[in-house]
Amino acid sequence: MGRNAIVGQSGGPTCVINSSLAGVLQACQMRGAEHVYGMLHGIEGLLKGRVVDLGATLGSTLEIELLKRSPSSYLGSCRYKLPSYLEHPEVYENLFAILNRMDIGYFFYIGGNDSMDTICKLSDYAKQIGSNIRFVGVPKTIDNDLMGTDHTPGYGSAAKYIGVVMKELIRDATVYGTKYVTIVEVMGRNAGWLTAAAALAQGEDCEGVDLICLPEVPFDPEKFITKVETLQKCNSSIVVAVSEGVRLADGRYVCELADDVHSVDAFGHKSLTGTARYLSNFVARHLDTKTRSIELSTLQRCAAHVSSRTDVTEAYQVGGAAAKAAFEGHTGVMIGIRRISNDPYQSTTELRDIHDVANFEKKVPMEWINDYKTGMKKEFLTYARPLIQAELTPVYIDGLPRHIYLK
Amino acid sequence: MGRNAIVGQSGGPTCVINSSLAGVLQACQMRGAEHVYGMLHGIEGLLKGRVVDLGATLGSTLEIELLKRSPSSYLGSCRYKLPSYLEHPEVYENLFAILNRMDIGYFFYIGGNDSMDTICKLSDYAKQIGSNIRFVGVPKTIDNDLMGTDHTPGYGSAAKYIGVVMKELIRDATVYGTKYVTIVEVMGRNAGWLTAAAALAQGEDCEGVDLICLPEVPFDPEKFITKVETLQKCNSSIVVAVSEGVRLADGRYVCELADDVHSVDAFGHKSLTGTARYLSNFVARHLDTKTRSIELSTLQRCAAHVSSRTDVTEAYQVGGAAAKAAFEGHTGVMIGIRRISNDPYQSTTELRDIHDVANFEKKVPMEWINDYKTGMKKEFLTYARPLIQAELTPVYIDGLPRHIYLK
Repeated sequence: MGRNAIVGQSGGPTCVINSSLAGVLQACQMRGAEHVYGMLHGIEGLLKGRVVDLGATLGSTLEIELLKRSPSSYLGSCRYKLPSYLEHPEVYENLFAILNRMDIGYFFYIGGNDSMDTICKLSDYAKQIGSNIRFVGVPKTIDNDLMGTDHTPGYGSAAKYIGVVMKELIRDATVYGTKYVTIVEVMGRNAGWLTAAAALAQGEDCEGVDLICLPEVPFDPEKFITKVETLQKCNSSIVVAVSEGVRLADGRYVCELADDVHSVDAFGHKSLTGTARYLSNFVARHLDTKTRSIELSTLQRCAAHVSSRTDVTEAYQVGGAAAKAAFEGHTGVMIGIRRISNDPYQSTTELRDIHDVANFEKKVPMEWINDYKTGMKKEFLTYARPLIQAELTPVYIDGLPRHIYLK
Repeated sequence: MGRNAIVGQSGGPTCVINSSLAGVLQACQMRGAEHVYGMLHGIEGLLKGRVVDLGATLGSTLEIELLKRSPSSYLGSCRYKLPSYLEHPEVYENLFAILNRMDIGYFFYIGGNDSMDTICKLSDYAKQIGSNIRFVGVPKTIDNDLMGTDHTPGYGSAAKYIGVVMKELIRDATVYGTKYVTIVEVMGRNAGWLTAAAALAQGEDCEGVDLICLPEVPFDPEKFITKVETLQKCNSSIVVAVSEGVRLADGRYVCELADDVHSVDAFGHKSLTGTARYLSNFVARHLDTKTRSIELSTLQRCAAHVSSRTDVTEAYQVGGAAAKAAFEGHTGVMIGIRRISNDPYQSTTELRDIHDVANFEKKVPMEWINDYKTGMKKEFLTYARPLIQAELTPVYIDGLPRHIYLK
């Protein structure tokens, strides 16, 4: 049994992916790992032998505390797609040679769907060749689209950010009392969890957003115009939250209706952007109103200054639970979060077979969307509200939050 | 002498314009104003008789405290340009008839350049007709381009927001370790104060932005590409802060080089947006790198959840100083902030003749821009750093900041 552990971060960053890293690191150290290594830029870096010894780079508890509050992936990330063993056996042989040379017994990968696919392939291969290295997935994605977990660490903070800025944008948009349509574009390719979080803005002190457009619902531009026109008869300022991934009934993305060039990433995902801009121009052409488009862009995944303490804490816990699972002999599993109760909110972690997680995608249940497909029912709010509770104040130094990063 | 006071908010909102409203309200009440009225949507609303009694709508100290933390303009705003007396004497006659009917003795207008123009015209007219209503301007603008004051309330919080998100975006942009150019568009038509605030991000824990493009410096697209290419030889991730108002040497706005439609507001100002998007596409066409454009958009003027306590406090103080000035007999003045010292930072308020303020525009001094015109010298940091100090934590309820607004 290898005496060391290794951990990597993969896919898009979140505000709390580093809190999971802290959780893995401290739990592995406590359970007696001799070294806890970090892969630089995920498995892609590991294949090039690019690793750091985390016990050396994160030596103090103050550094660990700053790590929990630092956005982006401390170790760097990648979008490397592990090929299948049948196509490229040499990649697996190379990787296991590296792991064995480093005396690795425990392998952790913090990420979303694509990262769980990596854990799935590696743990299957390990069993096949009789390696006893244990592979455990740590869930992370702002998109909240992972199966096998009530929600994913990263979602709560992104949802809180969206709730906060929606409230601020709704106030701002009413300032002139004139006809105004603000269209806010939120991340989420196929699952509308983040866009749905715009519904959290509504309360005693906020009218809330007027319209929520999720990728789960086919988008009809004509109906959209009619709806906005009707809404504007009651309120001059209309705020719309729209997912970057909304599509027409024929499957085309709304943003593809604009003429911008779109690129494709390593997983074949199209770069989706410009949905709000397109719709803003579309409304301006059809209705007598000013319009504005706002893209929350990467701000929604890196706004660590307004993270959810519940999220930071759970991210740390799943990291620790992953180490516990691996040291207790589990492999080919992901740590899931199970919700015990809503009021008071309580959750625990559990082990999920990685085959039941990888390459699935969890969408917003249709029964949580209202009958008009224009907003969220209270079932969604009951689900999401506990995840944005409480704050983890940044360590402010000279007016700005202090971060930590690998130089 | 009229026994009542009236206050209005005009122009673009800031995070702290309501703190100035609180300052005016409480100081007028303390000095014995019978009623303190608020104009709804500024002077435009006043001309239609749309006012509220602030003593009634903001009755408790808890409400005042929430007011200080609420973004946007509590009273609503306008972009109404007061015509000259010679063109439209009836507007002035109408307005003074309303003020006299309401028994107004003290008139406060919280705003930027255009609002100070209003105070200038009204106080001049009052003197001409022998009215003893006192007109006092309260400075406000995130743009920091007002003359007669060391800085304007609103700037500090916007600068802090820009510093915070730049740090987060810089971390986020390094995550893949691949070639990446992030271009962040910041508000500021002719004055680069907000864009310059991106320089605050640099510190022990942050590399800082790589390039700052202010409207004070003519923009040369070819030189820009060469600079980005050179910078990328050392660092794969390059972050650029660019003002929406950057122009070519021939005076054309960079955003006009794109094909989007641009509208014009009541003051004849063109809507400037799309500068970062244009430059991002421009870089992608010329260099072998991924690019991303991010518009901070209205978020930079309404992100009350990360306001500067120094700014909130000074905004309140200038409101109080305005009431003091009016009650002590002054008219045709704006409250300026005078900096007493940098270390420790100390400031006080002073009275400025409104004629020396209205219709001027304060730009970033050229001697605060580095010799290569690519960033800020330490003189700027010495100036700006004190203004972003300390935080005013929102009152978080159920995970989101509590606001107050006029229903």
